[in-house]
Amino acid sequence: MSDEIQATLNEMGRRARAAGRTLAQTPTDRRNRALSLAAAAIRTDAAAIAEANREDVTAATAKGLSAAMIDRLTLTPARIESMASGLEVIATLSDPLGRVLADWTRPNGLNISRVAVPLGVIGIIYESRPNVTADAAGLCLKSGNACILRGGSESFRSARAIMAALTKGFASAGLSPDAVQMVPTTDRAAVGAMLRLSDYIDVIVPRGGKSLVARVVEESRIPLFHHLEGLCHTYVDAAADLEMARKVVLNAKMRRTGICGATETLLIDRAVAPTHLAPLVLDLLAAGCEVRGDAAAQAVDPRVAPADENDWRTEYLDAIISVKVVDGVDGAIDHINTHGSHHTEAIITENTATAETFLNCCDSAIVLWNASTQFADGGEFGMGAEIGISTGKMHARGPVGVEQLCTFKYVVRGSGQTRPG
Amino acid sequence: MSDEIQATLNEMGRRARAAGRTLAQTPTDRRNRALSLAAAAIRTDAAAIAEANREDVTAATAKGLSAAMIDRLTLTPARIESMASGLEVIATLSDPLGRVLADWTRPNGLNISRVAVPLGVIGIIYESRPNVTADAAGLCLKSGNACILRGGSESFRSARAIMAALTKGFASAGLSPDAVQMVPTTDRAAVGAMLRLSDYIDVIVPRGGKSLVARVVEESRIPLFHHLEGLCHTYVDAAADLEMARKVVLNAKMRRTGICGATETLLIDRAVAPTHLAPLVLDLLAAGCEVRGDAAAQAVDPRVAPADENDWRTEYLDAIISVKVVDGVDGAIDHINTHGSHHTEAIITENTATAETFLNCCDSAIVLWNASTQFADGGEFGMGAEIGISTGKMHARGPVGVEQLCTFKYVVRGSGQTRPG
Repeated sequence: MSDEIQATLNEMGRRARAAGRTLAQTPTDRRNRALSLAAAAIRTDAAAIAEANREDVTAATAKGLSAAMIDRLTLTPARIESMASGLEVIATLSDPLGRVLADWTRPNGLNISRVAVPLGVIGIIYESRPNVTADAAGLCLKSGNACILRGGSESFRSARAIMAALTKGFASAGLSPDAVQMVPTTDRAAVGAMLRLSDYIDVIVPRGGKSLVARVVEESRIPLFHHLEGLCHTYVDAAADLEMARKVVLNAKMRRTGICGATETLLIDRAVAPTHLAPLVLDLLAAGCEVRGDAAAQAVDPRVAPADENDWRTEYLDAIISVKVVDGVDGAIDHINTHGSHHTEAIITENTATAETFLNCCDSAIVLWNASTQFADGGEFGMGAEIGISTGKMHARGPVGVEQLCTFKYVVRGSGQTRPG
Repeated sequence: MSDEIQATLNEMGRRARAAGRTLAQTPTDRRNRALSLAAAAIRTDAAAIAEANREDVTAATAKGLSAAMIDRLTLTPARIESMASGLEVIATLSDPLGRVLADWTRPNGLNISRVAVPLGVIGIIYESRPNVTADAAGLCLKSGNACILRGGSESFRSARAIMAALTKGFASAGLSPDAVQMVPTTDRAAVGAMLRLSDYIDVIVPRGGKSLVARVVEESRIPLFHHLEGLCHTYVDAAADLEMARKVVLNAKMRRTGICGATETLLIDRAVAPTHLAPLVLDLLAAGCEVRGDAAAQAVDPRVAPADENDWRTEYLDAIISVKVVDGVDGAIDHINTHGSHHTEAIITENTATAETFLNCCDSAIVLWNASTQFADGGEFGMGAEIGISTGKMHARGPVGVEQLCTFKYVVRGSGQTRPG
């Protein structure tokens, strides 16, 4: 059975590689037209997609899945429309392919340019959110990459219905059905089989909870764009404007607690702890946030629980925050580089030199000065859309948009030059 | 014993990570001064380096190593001087760190910039060429990366003597000895131990023969900048200038046959085979090149041996070439994408449209029009120096110079922005 799955995946990979080569040469307007037609097909098929989703939700409810899972799984009419309009937005983005990233001429007359080209084939492994099907396929198509999608078993019927609509749209623009393929089984062995396709898949994007991502990291021989967790910090410096700090910290923690850019640990400069710690902690408590702190934070209010070493390493993804007093910006940087996940960190300060030290020395994909960590998002960065956020240092870091789904090649134009020596 | 080696490597990794964080913040002029002082130290220590090298060469000769290996191992006074001047050249390159790769401001006033920062820690695994010690250490230092070097056993004494000189130079500029470290044993288990340091090493660069690189590819859980082979092609199109083609093909194959940019397969458009095949093949034969060809090539001269399927997949690294007639540019692209190693390919043609098709459709790191494949080299590209050439698509592709030894971070500057909704 597992051999059969591997054979199926190998064949999908082989077809994706060939389709990717064709897609790389497909003109901008045809790729954009395919996206628009897919958006239209999703609107046309909205009822069928909603019906498939109802079946998924019924099955998930019967299995006793959590309310949060059911919510992620559920496609409302607004969410279906949002998939369609998302594809249209991707169609309006400027073409990431063919961009001349650098261009120079050598003394011998050779002209060298570094030109953006697709990565080739992208694999996306995701869980319960069925909308990832459309979002990921759209970003890959825009960037000239073939893709292989593998959704979670609980959203399989929904994803299949969305895929059917996408396929119709893409086919109307004359694209090969091999350009966007979906793994046709919910068998878990298919994930392992997909991770072995290093000849055919150039990069894997795992989208889901920590256990899914950890499994992919463990098993994959294919490069990944991923983050395991977003253990983000906000540091309130001695030179912070307290009112700004209160506003930003509350937003960074509480706007949405379940996203990877939510602040999980608040660090406060010892120099201003006597004045700043209490209002910041009391704001969070008043907003319904559980606070776990060091001795200083506990002294603010009896509701503050003691934090242990484990709290500094925990991504709560919930209305819980850990709070610690540190010795200035160096103490904050040291805590962040030691305990953090290299995702997103913010400093609140009016002191430019201190801010620059923090921005330089935090070894994270995104560092912010006087702004909420919840801005860690491709849309908020103006990238139009993102396929995920990477904490890796190789190739893509931070939000991964259509430009990051490209690599480059060197194109050298000469007039018969030979190399001397 | 292997546990002890792993413990040693872990400790080296831990120190390298810390040293890398410091080096990332070390000003340009101090990094450049360290390079100049290391160059001076190599000159001062030239006699000691030469003596250590003599011991390596004596041992290698006694072991019966090939003449080519002995040549790669031998350090002449000119080669020692070349290491020193190479470090000085790296010192003159512009600083790759802190470059603002992109910068934009969002409607909400957030300023976002993408800034070049070091990758962190680079591991270099190499074989008999002792000069890699200085070249690699210099490129890593320039780009703010700590490095861990692991040379081959046959060049161990030479590499250790070079390393001693480098260490003195770097220390004179006040750099930590942990910034550039060398694995202190020739035990092969150290390579495996190094490849397990994924917490401490960000990228591994294997430099050496195919068997070394293949072993590293097989075992490494750390990303690599590498190429397994350079199976480069030159395609002579129907619209080629025959004189240019003769000159370029001869250079592409014969200038140096042992480098990765040497052409291994010559493809000729069927439309001009009757006129172009014979002069091209006869030139190669006259230059002492062994020619293995398809039926058409064999018909040119009795010295042309038959090529089999294996020849289209062989990187000879020698004065041997395979020759094949193909059906125009599409046939050439198809052959190259099927049999090639995605390294470097050239087309000779006077037809712009045909050239652009070739440049677009060959899925290789470097594609050239009317120039020799032997230009596949960081120095020839004007990058100053390279740590290697990558056929991977992730992060670095083609020559890997100091800019490719960098990653980036997003720096976001605000004035108290919080994310709505």
